Amino acid sequence: MIGRLLVVGVGLIGGSFALALRAAGQVSEVIGVGRRPESLQAAVELGVIDRAGRLDRATVESANIVLLAAPVGDIARHAVEIAALAGPDTVVTDAGSTKGNVVEALAGLPPEARRGFVPGHPIAGAESSGVRAARVDLFRDHTVVLTPGADTDPVAVARVQSAWMACGARVVSMTAEDHDRLFAAVSHLPHLLSFALVEELALRGDASRLFEYAAGGFRDFTRIAASDPEMWRDIALANRAALLTELDLYQVRLAGLRAMVADADAEGLRAAFDTARTARVAWSQRPPRSR
Amino acid sequence: MIGRLLVVGVGLIGGSFALALRAAGQVSEVIGVGRRPESLQAAVELGVIDRAGRLDRATVESANIVLLAAPVGDIARHAVEIAALAGPDTVVTDAGSTKGNVVEALAGLPPEARRGFVPGHPIAGAESSGVRAARVDLFRDHTVVLTPGADTDPVAVARVQSAWMACGARVVSMTAEDHDRLFAAVSHLPHLLSFALVEELALRGDASRLFEYAAGGFRDFTRIAASDPEMWRDIALANRAALLTELDLYQVRLAGLRAMVADADAEGLRAAFDTARTARVAWSQRPPRSR
Repeated sequence: MIGRLLVVGVGLIGGSFALALRAAGQVSEVIGVGRRPESLQAAVELGVIDRAGRLDRATVESANIVLLAAPVGDIARHAVEIAALAGPDTVVTDAGSTKGNVVEALAGLPPEARRGFVPGHPIAGAESSGVRAARVDLFRDHTVVLTPGADTDPVAVARVQSAWMACGARVVSMTAEDHDRLFAAVSHLPHLLSFALVEELALRGDASRLFEYAAGGFRDFTRIAASDPEMWRDIALANRAALLTELDLYQVRLAGLRAMVADADAEGLRAAFDTARTARVAWSQRPPRSR
Repeated sequence: MIGRLLVVGVGLIGGSFALALRAAGQVSEVIGVGRRPESLQAAVELGVIDRAGRLDRATVESANIVLLAAPVGDIARHAVEIAALAGPDTVVTDAGSTKGNVVEALAGLPPEARRGFVPGHPIAGAESSGVRAARVDLFRDHTVVLTPGADTDPVAVARVQSAWMACGARVVSMTAEDHDRLFAAVSHLPHLLSFALVEELALRGDASRLFEYAAGGFRDFTRIAASDPEMWRDIALANRAALLTELDLYQVRLAGLRAMVADADAEGLRAAFDTARTARVAWSQRPPRSR
């Protein structure tokens, strides 16, 4: 039993965390903080939170666990604010898609203010956003990555870990740097590449004609280019260093393929495509990860 | 009524064309030519073709329409071979994903040998390949692009057009150059970009760990990286010039986004991603094209 939960940013992620912890009997009270009163009102009506609160010392201090689920661009700032308000028994975690920026922001605080903060990233999402899209099973069988530092309190890590496990998630720990590199490679870079293709075609004089002949391959490749522009701007900037590293490696790889096309290197192209196909097929056929 | 159909390469595309024309009552006899006797035998058993034939003068000459549906890498060679064997009433078309290479190969023939050849590209496919995957409705409501030249016989164009319409397809005509540019942009380039990402990650020492954290966005973006390596090698080489042009434009666009990330140009990134998102959403919501 965790006790009192404070959710800062009661949307899809924050709302689903509250629903899951309540269903698991882990929380006695859920308080929500957010920018839009109507959204908090909806959260109360939906039974996601018990009441709306304010981001002040009394509220934060009295919470046993705080989930910060604000947009990525606001997380570092809120993380510092909440860590500074936390009481001795308050454990804080966040749900941002990038972790280095959170760790960096917290590094400016005295060690006692940041030892109860466990940066985290639940790998879950849905087509929709907002508290009305919240679901009790959003995290079930999904992975949550925690990136505690050397001076993070092990008791705080254990509490955050058990909260996510109570939501049905599997929890893994790694460094923030490792997290950001992994997700730059398998998520942030693909988004940038997909946005780039659609932007390039959309800005052409004959864009509508080009799109007219786009079919299934284009549909799959560009599905992520319909993602929220502000969210992905924030992620690209928050994970700038790792994203640039991955992008540069990709550009070198692409330049290599370009040379093979230009040189009509049939064997090189077949080998490269075959490496990709073999890896992609193996990935899609992998057994579901054990929890 | 078209008469006798000769299908060269009785797989998914060639087989579906035969099934659709037969169902439409357009053909009196269907002859199949292919490399693998067991596949032709299966085509006979499935009722896709009436009999297997050989690619000789008597067979080609007696056909009223020939569909060349061989792999892209073999099409140019076969096109020349078939055009040279065609009789005065034989109309020939092909189903290759690239058209400039076919037109270029035919350009070496005397005008009378190429006037009955109408290069084509049915925009249809399926997860599976081979004659067992052939379906009578594969082309229904799909687009077929024809790229006749200035000296192509209008009677031949009309016959090919009516054959595809009998399959339920809509038919559009454009130049081979225009076709290759369009498909380089919306199909061939995305495949190259997707192969490049998966190849890059697959060759890393920690590939399996990277793939472990790949989720839905990665799945969509890389679905086409599971495509047939030989087919896409052939397409990349057959459409080399247009693909390189599109790839270079893309690299410039990507370098622009890279600079925005490096410069933390939040407004530039938001605008770029927004352009892409708006275009992608509009594309996915477009009304189905009227036939």
